[in-house]
Amino acid sequence: MNGPAAQGRVYGVGVGPGDPELMTVRADRLVRSARHVAYFRKAGRPGQARRIVEGMLCSDAVEHAMEYPVTTEIPLDDPAYAAALAPFYAECAARLLALVGEGEDVVTLCEGDPFFYGSFMHLHARIRGHAAVEIVPGVTGMSAAWTATDEPVTWGDDVLTVLTGTLPEPTLVARMQGADALVVMKVGRNLPKVRRAIAAAGMLERAWLVENAAMPGQTVAPLAAAAERAAPYFSIVIVHGRGRRP
Amino acid sequence: MNGPAAQGRVYGVGVGPGDPELMTVRADRLVRSARHVAYFRKAGRPGQARRIVEGMLCSDAVEHAMEYPVTTEIPLDDPAYAAALAPFYAECAARLLALVGEGEDVVTLCEGDPFFYGSFMHLHARIRGHAAVEIVPGVTGMSAAWTATDEPVTWGDDVLTVLTGTLPEPTLVARMQGADALVVMKVGRNLPKVRRAIAAAGMLERAWLVENAAMPGQTVAPLAAAAERAAPYFSIVIVHGRGRRP
Ligand SMILES: C[S@@+](CC[C@H](N)C(=O)[O-])C[C@H]1O[C@@H](n2cnc3c(N)ncnc32)[C@H](O)[C@@H]1O
Ligand SMILES: C[S@@+](CC[C@H](N)C(=O)[O-])C[C@H]1O[C@@H](n2cnc3c(N)ncnc32)[C@H](O)[C@@H]1O
Repeated sequence: MNGPAAQGRVYGVGVGPGDPELMTVRADRLVRSARHVAYFRKAGRPGQARRIVEGMLCSDAVEHAMEYPVTTEIPLDDPAYAAALAPFYAECAARLLALVGEGEDVVTLCEGDPFFYGSFMHLHARIRGHAAVEIVPGVTGMSAAWTATDEPVTWGDDVLTVLTGTLPEPTLVARMQGADALVVMKVGRNLPKVRRAIAAAGMLERAWLVENAAMPGQTVAPLAAAAERAAPYFSIVIVHGRGRRP
Repeated sequence: MNGPAAQGRVYGVGVGPGDPELMTVRADRLVRSARHVAYFRKAGRPGQARRIVEGMLCSDAVEHAMEYPVTTEIPLDDPAYAAALAPFYAECAARLLALVGEGEDVVTLCEGDPFFYGSFMHLHARIRGHAAVEIVPGVTGMSAAWTATDEPVTWGDDVLTVLTGTLPEPTLVARMQGADALVVMKVGRNLPKVRRAIAAAGMLERAWLVENAAMPGQTVAPLAAAAERAAPYFSIVIVHGRGRRP
């Protein structure tokens, strides 16, 4: 019997924090054998997820770059931001669903872990129910960041708070105050605000700024010593817990 | 010139949450080529980290099982706990340092990510300064757990709180209240307490219990439906964030 062509599958593959050796064995295998590879990038940029897999793709792999429509960043809480991105994600989802409908599998590259503050989540929400989706978890940027500091992040009963530097300063201070250990994501241009908030929460002396963790330009420095500037996009602030240790 | 034999190196290798395919490429390579492999286990148990690498070790690899001295668990805040564990960790550290002194490398297997609530951290604190140590980050148990729920854990500006079920109930409730997204580690026998605390924090209806994530017996169930019993050691509770999504 010749039924209709089987549908393909969308893979949301975490490619880890930067070093290709920190991809999982499963991600490595999926990427090397993929016929269709999709990834987000800013217009005119190579895209970090794509850069991580450089040299690993099949010679006949078809690449599907999904270019964000916003280059100069709109503040995230501006309604114009969602207005610009919603149709973009809808269009990307349609593109992947068309491939899947032709029976093709598509490997979508995701920085770090796909379900942790990732862009792929917005495709996933639109694709699920219409196609099979499989998620491959990955090593997060924060794991690479605390590894770079050479100190464990949580001990014993430490409470770890993870928040984003995009929050308003008073919210940052309030949320930091309940933390034993702290990770601040999305530092970038929010660095001066994050630094003021950490100082207000009484943690500046033990905070570290990690730039480009597990990437070529990795740096680790006390946050107190960081200049009043923007940090690169791939930056995380870490405050280590001080919990029970036998 | 014949100097003293070069010292070996201790590797703290994250082997991920359970599925051997979720080990990193680097961990996979280190484990397969290791001549000395060390890991913690409870007396009489195979040890989860060791189980993950089953079938991967060299035929001439030497195994160093480090057996916890406490089988019936002492409450973690009991001084007897630290009193029992401190000499144990010191002895394990001495054992690894002896190997390193003979020029051998030792690969120490760590569940998930080594620097995230891990036992290896207690060896690391004792070995650093005496030998070269290299940490290989891994996919955490919590990444596998939220992947198992098939829903992203954090969106937009969500604050993620990670805490341990070993905390006293009032502390659990207080710390949960500031969270948008929540991960509870070390659920196990603390399940009834964790469930009461989550209910008190108003999150029971959206909490999930994930047992044995990325392992053979994986289960995902609403926490509200979980019976009044202990959960297995490898259990995590997840509450997903509901942040901004374009
Ligand atoms: C949109 S989130 C994506 C997070 C990713 N899904 C993960 O699991 O790490 C982007 C933020 O992650 C952080 N980040 C991710 N990888 C990083 C790395 N290798 N070094 C430093 N920061 C990183 C930065 O704070 C950046 O602003
Ligand atoms: C001592 S901590 C070790 C955490 C580990 N270093 C990590 O990165 O996930 C042990 C706790 O981790 C959680 N855990 C680790 N792996 C898990 C898995 N595969 N499934 C469910 N829970 C897991 C459980 O809550 C367990 O009590």
